[in-house]
Amino acid sequence: MSNTGNDHHVQLPQEQAGALPRLHHFSLDPFCRRVRLTLAELGVAHELVDESPWLQEERLLALNPAGEVPVWVEPDGTLAAGIYAVTEHIEETRTEAATSLLGTHPAQRAEVRRLLSWFDGRFYMEVSAPVLMEKGIKRLLPQGMGGGAPDTRVLRTAAERLAQHLDLIGRLAEERGLLGGPQLTLADLAAAAHLSVLEYLDALRFHDNEAAKTWYQRIKSRPAFRPLLADRVKNLPPPAIYAALDF
Amino acid sequence: MSNTGNDHHVQLPQEQAGALPRLHHFSLDPFCRRVRLTLAELGVAHELVDESPWLQEERLLALNPAGEVPVWVEPDGTLAAGIYAVTEHIEETRTEAATSLLGTHPAQRAEVRRLLSWFDGRFYMEVSAPVLMEKGIKRLLPQGMGGGAPDTRVLRTAAERLAQHLDLIGRLAEERGLLGGPQLTLADLAAAAHLSVLEYLDALRFHDNEAAKTWYQRIKSRPAFRPLLADRVKNLPPPAIYAALDF
Repeated sequence: MSNTGNDHHVQLPQEQAGALPRLHHFSLDPFCRRVRLTLAELGVAHELVDESPWLQEERLLALNPAGEVPVWVEPDGTLAAGIYAVTEHIEETRTEAATSLLGTHPAQRAEVRRLLSWFDGRFYMEVSAPVLMEKGIKRLLPQGMGGGAPDTRVLRTAAERLAQHLDLIGRLAEERGLLGGPQLTLADLAAAAHLSVLEYLDALRFHDNEAAKTWYQRIKSRPAFRPLLADRVKNLPPPAIYAALDF
Repeated sequence: MSNTGNDHHVQLPQEQAGALPRLHHFSLDPFCRRVRLTLAELGVAHELVDESPWLQEERLLALNPAGEVPVWVEPDGTLAAGIYAVTEHIEETRTEAATSLLGTHPAQRAEVRRLLSWFDGRFYMEVSAPVLMEKGIKRLLPQGMGGGAPDTRVLRTAAERLAQHLDLIGRLAEERGLLGGPQLTLADLAAAAHLSVLEYLDALRFHDNEAAKTWYQRIKSRPAFRPLLADRVKNLPPPAIYAALDF
């Protein structure tokens, strides 16, 4: 299945891999989006391989028995599976102290990782995962395999939780400049990746939270975001606002 | 509430903290157990502060808005909240390449982190969390707050999942010597921490999985494990086998 415009189906086994590392991803997975933003910010060239993790295909399970994306495969076969391993592998192999997106001193790095846990854990469970299931996966799956109309009650609860999380985002942005401090960190990329998935699925509403909206506009305007804004998932078109920077 | 024999209630605010770092923990939380094993393996002196995260007390929420343990507080006030931040903070500030418990080269470190995601995610959700709720927290909570008798159906499902995870553990131990390779890594400490929580709650059964049992005996026999085996949670005594090394 072809998910995105950035379609590079690499069929070679690991040992025959080419010169570029490969990111196995699903366009609307917020963790994969964060990794793509990270790679773009760091300028790490790579190939994208589309996956449909909900189908639990053998190819993906062979790379990651958990059946989850992202999976990162180096040209020498080195494999990092899952958002935790991929994040820290890229940190360890592609950044220096001065370029790290985790921050510059231990207290900031711990705080950024705390925020990553928050967005990867609580935000994902309360907002991204239910929205992605109801408005995304259910529309991609055939009816007999769990496809169908979204559950509006689930979406309403997710929208309430989103408002609370946007309050947190707005407060952090006002206090610190950006979420993990004055300079860009993975906390910004993680939160913006989640919001961009919601935006693609027409489930992002800021209401009157200007601080959160301003912060998101700032991250969304970065050049690293452009490839994400060009993504189009087959049978799942985004709303017009999705690619707009002056929303 | 006093949970364990290792009881050091430090009431000082951060800026008056003493010379030792503090680990805020709950004795039967598998993530806290892994951190304690890590600190013992690395020889990092610290104080323990008992927490009861299910009560969502202000003191803990002030340290970690997610309300979760472990939380690590350095004498200078540097704070790492949640298992991800604590793990990587200790890795970055307390180990060298030669002593790292994540492994020696990028491929191994990525594999160890994949296994940590597996045990922290899937194993926790399918086994540790339901067992801890049904056989632990429910017995510590008053009836009006969710306390009561364990749900045997939940426990049966968890036991089935445990058998599958033990198959994985046994296979890895047979193939590699230990879970993340021939030498000790955080993958061993994570898995053993989960199993030791089950053992305390009398929910650990190896059936005929000798490979998994041998691996667990090996990790449980390490000196780093001794403080855990001395833990006793009030109103929740462990079975006799809990502290035995020749089980």
